[in-house]
Amino acid sequence: MHHELPEEKVFKDPVHKSIYVKDRIIWNLINTKEFQRLRRIRQLGTSYLTFHGAEHSRFSHSLGVYEITRRIISQFERLGDSDWPKEERLTALCASLLHDVGHGPFSHSIEAVFDTHHEEWTCRLLLEDTELNRVLRGVSDDFPERIVSVIRRTHEKPIVVSLVTSQLDADRMDFLLRDAYYTGTHYGTFDIDRILRVMRPHKGRIVVKESGMHAVEDYLMSRYQMYWQVYFHPVTRSSEIVLRQIFRRAKELYRGGWRFDSLLEPLKRLFDGEMTADDYFRLDEPLVQTQFMMWTDEKDPLLADLCRRFLHRRLYKYTTMDEPDEALLDRARQALLDVGLNPSYHLEIDYPYDLPYHIYRPGGDSGPGAQPILLLGEHDELTDIADRSEIVRSIAGIHRGRHHLYYPEDMLLKHRDRLPSDIRRLIGMA
Amino acid sequence: MHHELPEEKVFKDPVHKSIYVKDRIIWNLINTKEFQRLRRIRQLGTSYLTFHGAEHSRFSHSLGVYEITRRIISQFERLGDSDWPKEERLTALCASLLHDVGHGPFSHSIEAVFDTHHEEWTCRLLLEDTELNRVLRGVSDDFPERIVSVIRRTHEKPIVVSLVTSQLDADRMDFLLRDAYYTGTHYGTFDIDRILRVMRPHKGRIVVKESGMHAVEDYLMSRYQMYWQVYFHPVTRSSEIVLRQIFRRAKELYRGGWRFDSLLEPLKRLFDGEMTADDYFRLDEPLVQTQFMMWTDEKDPLLADLCRRFLHRRLYKYTTMDEPDEALLDRARQALLDVGLNPSYHLEIDYPYDLPYHIYRPGGDSGPGAQPILLLGEHDELTDIADRSEIVRSIAGIHRGRHHLYYPEDMLLKHRDRLPSDIRRLIGMA
Amino acid sequence: MHHELPEEKVFKDPVHKSIYVKDRIIWNLINTKEFQRLRRIRQLGTSYLTFHGAEHSRFSHSLGVYEITRRIISQFERLGDSDWPKEERLTALCASLLHDVGHGPFSHSIEAVFDTHHEEWTCRLLLEDTELNRVLRGVSDDFPERIVSVIRRTHEKPIVVSLVTSQLDADRMDFLLRDAYYTGTHYGTFDIDRILRVMRPHKGRIVVKESGMHAVEDYLMSRYQMYWQVYFHPVTRSSEIVLRQIFRRAKELYRGGWRFDSLLEPLKRLFDGEMTADDYFRLDEPLVQTQFMMWTDEKDPLLADLCRRFLHRRLYKYTTMDEPDEALLDRARQALLDVGLNPSYHLEIDYPYDLPYHIYRPGGDSGPGAQPILLLGEHDELTDIADRSEIVRSIAGIHRGRHHLYYPEDMLLKHRDRLPSDIRRLIGMA
Amino acid sequence: MHHELPEEKVFKDPVHKSIYVKDRIIWNLINTKEFQRLRRIRQLGTSYLTFHGAEHSRFSHSLGVYEITRRIISQFERLGDSDWPKEERLTALCASLLHDVGHGPFSHSIEAVFDTHHEEWTCRLLLEDTELNRVLRGVSDDFPERIVSVIRRTHEKPIVVSLVTSQLDADRMDFLLRDAYYTGTHYGTFDIDRILRVMRPHKGRIVVKESGMHAVEDYLMSRYQMYWQVYFHPVTRSSEIVLRQIFRRAKELYRGGWRFDSLLEPLKRLFDGEMTADDYFRLDEPLVQTQFMMWTDEKDPLLADLCRRFLHRRLYKYTTMDEPDEALLDRARQALLDVGLNPSYHLEIDYPYDLPYHIYRPGGDSGPGAQPILLLGEHDELTDIADRSEIVRSIAGIHRGRHHLYYPEDMLLKHRDRLPSDIRRLIGMA
Repeated sequence: MHHELPEEKVFKDPVHKSIYVKDRIIWNLINTKEFQRLRRIRQLGTSYLTFHGAEHSRFSHSLGVYEITRRIISQFERLGDSDWPKEERLTALCASLLHDVGHGPFSHSIEAVFDTHHEEWTCRLLLEDTELNRVLRGVSDDFPERIVSVIRRTHEKPIVVSLVTSQLDADRMDFLLRDAYYTGTHYGTFDIDRILRVMRPHKGRIVVKESGMHAVEDYLMSRYQMYWQVYFHPVTRSSEIVLRQIFRRAKELYRGGWRFDSLLEPLKRLFDGEMTADDYFRLDEPLVQTQFMMWTDEKDPLLADLCRRFLHRRLYKYTTMDEPDEALLDRARQALLDVGLNPSYHLEIDYPYDLPYHIYRPGGDSGPGAQPILLLGEHDELTDIADRSEIVRSIAGIHRGRHHLYYPEDMLLKHRDRLPSDIRRLIGMA
Repeated sequence: MHHELPEEKVFKDPVHKSIYVKDRIIWNLINTKEFQRLRRIRQLGTSYLTFHGAEHSRFSHSLGVYEITRRIISQFERLGDSDWPKEERLTALCASLLHDVGHGPFSHSIEAVFDTHHEEWTCRLLLEDTELNRVLRGVSDDFPERIVSVIRRTHEKPIVVSLVTSQLDADRMDFLLRDAYYTGTHYGTFDIDRILRVMRPHKGRIVVKESGMHAVEDYLMSRYQMYWQVYFHPVTRSSEIVLRQIFRRAKELYRGGWRFDSLLEPLKRLFDGEMTADDYFRLDEPLVQTQFMMWTDEKDPLLADLCRRFLHRRLYKYTTMDEPDEALLDRARQALLDVGLNPSYHLEIDYPYDLPYHIYRPGGDSGPGAQPILLLGEHDELTDIADRSEIVRSIAGIHRGRHHLYYPEDMLLKHRDRLPSDIRRLIGMA
Repeated sequence: MHHELPEEKVFKDPVHKSIYVKDRIIWNLINTKEFQRLRRIRQLGTSYLTFHGAEHSRFSHSLGVYEITRRIISQFERLGDSDWPKEERLTALCASLLHDVGHGPFSHSIEAVFDTHHEEWTCRLLLEDTELNRVLRGVSDDFPERIVSVIRRTHEKPIVVSLVTSQLDADRMDFLLRDAYYTGTHYGTFDIDRILRVMRPHKGRIVVKESGMHAVEDYLMSRYQMYWQVYFHPVTRSSEIVLRQIFRRAKELYRGGWRFDSLLEPLKRLFDGEMTADDYFRLDEPLVQTQFMMWTDEKDPLLADLCRRFLHRRLYKYTTMDEPDEALLDRARQALLDVGLNPSYHLEIDYPYDLPYHIYRPGGDSGPGAQPILLLGEHDELTDIADRSEIVRSIAGIHRGRHHLYYPEDMLLKHRDRLPSDIRRLIGMA
Repeated sequence: MHHELPEEKVFKDPVHKSIYVKDRIIWNLINTKEFQRLRRIRQLGTSYLTFHGAEHSRFSHSLGVYEITRRIISQFERLGDSDWPKEERLTALCASLLHDVGHGPFSHSIEAVFDTHHEEWTCRLLLEDTELNRVLRGVSDDFPERIVSVIRRTHEKPIVVSLVTSQLDADRMDFLLRDAYYTGTHYGTFDIDRILRVMRPHKGRIVVKESGMHAVEDYLMSRYQMYWQVYFHPVTRSSEIVLRQIFRRAKELYRGGWRFDSLLEPLKRLFDGEMTADDYFRLDEPLVQTQFMMWTDEKDPLLADLCRRFLHRRLYKYTTMDEPDEALLDRARQALLDVGLNPSYHLEIDYPYDLPYHIYRPGGDSGPGAQPILLLGEHDELTDIADRSEIVRSIAGIHRGRHHLYYPEDMLLKHRDRLPSDIRRLIGMA
């Protein structure tokens, strides 16, 4: 088998115009059923309920990450820079293509309730008996493990990890551009051509030529805007809360021995904590949505109501608070109980910072993606961009999150007169 | 209840930037569960298997058609033209928003196999006991029927019908722009602002100022390009063929009394030809995809294979023919039989013109959307654009469709040596 | 001296985003005073008087043509196609950069009156004692002649000529995109990336892979639209007529021995027909405009009036005629004489087809740029695109030009009552 | 005379797509020779020598400012907000159209050398005997003064002034978008539709709805990027320095009684400080460039050299310094003297902050355009955006300018061996 395809394959892509595949292994990976499954997982989870255009899948995004990685590597090869380990090309391309392959439907919500981890699933799908694994082993017996080591950030060459996971990685660059394109938010666009042009391999890391500082500022500013305008949008948060409550309620019922009229097999396995790779493969968004549709007739009124809310987009309303008043919230919970509602579902306080995002945090951080963006000066000196740019320092320091209180307004309205006045004020019904 | 919302609602839209809703009834229609269901029906059916970006829903498109209609009417009102019947504003807006509300999952394929009609379903969802019907009746008792008369093109004021269904209607304008945006095909863009500016109401029709001829040429050229580049793309046709075969096989099995391991209720009702509005409501793409996933384990090997092909994107390959040679095709069918394949599924000939599209056909046609585009001269004279523009005549006259022969290449390859050489040539295995 | 610059130079360009220069000779050519002079020559002559955004120079365009040529050649080299003569790379790049270097201010008008030819001047600036010539001779003694042979289309390798002058050359591709960008006309955009991807060197020509037919259709359609919307715009024609009349009047006065209050040296040399390369170098648009400003005070009232019309944009009005009625026009000329006007200046009939443009003419033509666009089939067979595409045949056959009659409306209005009624009708004053 | 044109005029504009003129007075102002003159003044002065696409004129910009103002006012009228004084519509439109009409060629350089002020000239052109003045007086005798009072920021209704001159005015919004478009810099784009939608008239000011804060952040970030990427670009500064030196040298020669071979009349009047409105009218960029071309032959070698540098783009090179070392600079000047150069021309130190720009300075400032941008909360409370946004505070506080040292590298290279080593290091010739 030749390593190269006889003719380059071209995918038309709205964000990058074209995505080019020349390596047979990449082509074969795309054609596995596990990769094709990503067409059935939306990139932005429930965001389409806020931005109707955001219906794009992780399939599109994964191709985009691959394409950006391919371009970066092409440039490194063209520059002939010895700091780029040429033999890692295929590893980097495969890892970038596959880094999200373990994402399930509405990952963040499911992970919060069932303690699963998409990164772990990515590794299982690469290592267990799957089509993906068979294709990868076609390269060499230890090739699946090599890809996994990049995903887990333990790969011996940190520069390969940087391509896929860092402050300026192919993943972030694609999702910002793609999410901006599909939501119709122009804040999220930045000049990727310019950024790619100033990236350099340098002693095991990817750094940015000093002359590209403004382009990076612009990229970080786009990121900042996308986070506040799109990712932390309170309506999206509301839909995630409803979704999480569905999973929470179903799990609660299941553990309590509830006899569901309908419980599709892959979800049962999820509840039992016994999913195989094949179960996980079948657990896609159509299945979850179909289950929810069936549950709109389930006899548990809470579960049925939550599913209707999610499918028919009757989300929780919200009010904003600077700092939550715990005593007041306790009284609010009691007031809900008093009128027959269920405060552990019908009142939820949310703070965007429990989300797995942060915009840019310079220096010292120890988490993944925590390496600072380094500028490469004319004399090869390196500087954290945050030491040079007040814009970046400013973005890095921002903690603008406010608390939101979510609740089913329609239900509370029915009992409006029985709610104490301070509780009414709290939920904007004064 | 006030007719206007206290504050205008704005939807962010990638194609039109913003979509504005000021009328309470439009807002309420959008919030019905039947309209929200359109989020679960893709605008372009299986095209996402060819253009991975084309994952947008009929929900987005329907909002877009509404928005274009709103802009056209605003302009007619601003011009103060007496040829526009002002009292029809709300009828036109609702009809444009709802014209596709009866579309089911992968409509064209289902309609071909089960003889349903999405337009008929649109009317049923408007007239039967649905949330949509309740909202519409809030305007007046006969308002649902008024909307239906626009959908059925029997409304007393043809100009209202023209807005939603004609050669230059809000529907076509939105889908061309939207499908171009989401596929990433730039051929499909045209200057909608310019076209809207030259549209005029004129004696019961919508016509175009003569000075806008080039803009209309450009629009028709975009349409021509989108048809040949996107809508008739042979890979998309392949996925539609596989999809239709799934439905055909399942129906065949059902009629033959097959005991399915899994048969979800709404599909059973479809097979029985006894769908209620509520059944139809539940028949969405997630359900169809979930059913297909279950059927990948179905004991009928043909059905299981077809479902795997569709879900894992292992489509039929194709070869192109100028004119089908019936005798040769008969021999090909026999050859497939001889090697144990099923020619009624494993060999399908396709010609794009059995699709419900045509690009532009001037004058004389009697079908829906068949009215010519008329140019309005300085002295109010009207001319069919095809009489003025050679470009348009040329586009109108084009019959470039070629026949394609579809087949599962992998299956035939296994029997390659047993196929006669002319059959091998026919399917590109010479 | 190294052939390559130590660091690639990048020009930011609104149309191509970036223009890359790696060859020292290209860099040196750009920095000659003759090439820098192109900054002082507008690409679209007087079109800025119709489309105020169209203020871009031939400098920008020339860089763009170079960049497209560079990309085409890079692709040919990457494909490793033996039909591309690698040794011609530098010749092709230089010729594409310099093909317009002999353009003077408002070339078409000056050439019409003074019988000069910009192509001839391009060759003189390359061959005579100029900075350009010195840079070119740095490559080899006969290098200037090689570039000239491309410009004159006598170069031994026709494929090199094709890059710069053919139906699908870098020149046309850049000017269509650039003029569309700067006028704000979106009709003129087409997918250049797609076209570049399907171009192939083939037996001494550049051809297009069959699969790119629609992309070429779209390009030709853009061209058609740009010609009718922009290049033949009647207001632009009006400004060209006024401009040509200025030159005609000044020449007439000069030949008649008129003593100009002001006559700048390079123009005097133009009138004398004795321009050196240095005179030509100095004859730029600022000089012409400055001269016109001075002539607004010239004692000849006709010349002064024309200059004011041009500078203050008081252009001739026009009416449209299908076919000119010569007898009526003669009577109109007499009527102008009768009221004291000058019909050889104050009445001009114009037909767009005397312009040096044509959109696409398939086969048989013998003029420059007349080679058809050939499609390359799967089996290397070549077909004229006009034999395959009805769109292209239609565009090629269009002769939609109408005659326009231009005149100074304000002057005629003063004598309105003394004009016969049919003459009044002719000029829209009925 | 009707106030409205019988048919709305539409200018095609690349930035705003269309510019609409319905008022006859606006149309007449555009057609004055003084306004048409703006076609001969580039919007960005010498920036086209850095960004070749930036060849757009103040004519285009002025139309754009008018259009944005028109849209803002239309929205205020549509909202029916009583805080907008409807009777000021025409004043605001005219002022926005004409606010730059007094700009001369390369204004900043000429103003620096000759102590003229374009704002003063705007007022003179409106008040003296000009076509502009005649058109304005057609509205009322005091109308020219009303427009002048807006230009001078003394108009009784500060909200009218705000439209044209404030931190978020039509002027800034147009030039940022336009300069970004023509330079090809995508940093400068922001969502103007969104900003226009959140602007509100409020107690004599224009404020922004709180929900628009992120849009304003994005706008200010664009501004910050454009300043550092485009307006303060060191190559542009170099061309401005050469230009200013030409004027300085010519003035010096003129004051010293030098007999110029050529000195065009309007420049002579400028040197004498005795310009009339008509002289000023004639002083456009073509005249300045033509004069420079003539001066390339002037006998003063310094003036001739500077003119050649400017026209043939042989600009001064530069090095960057954090803090200038005055003693070292003194020694550098002496070193230049020693080798026969002229340090008052051949060595210039530049700091971008002597430019008439600042990005955003919250509160307390007293200069023009110094009012803060105020956010309007739900309860009508006003907050300086800098109190809410760390991004804005960060941008406002940035003083990132570095000093640059400019010099003619070619001249110094000739004497390289005679320069002390620290001077060589200073100018990068170590």
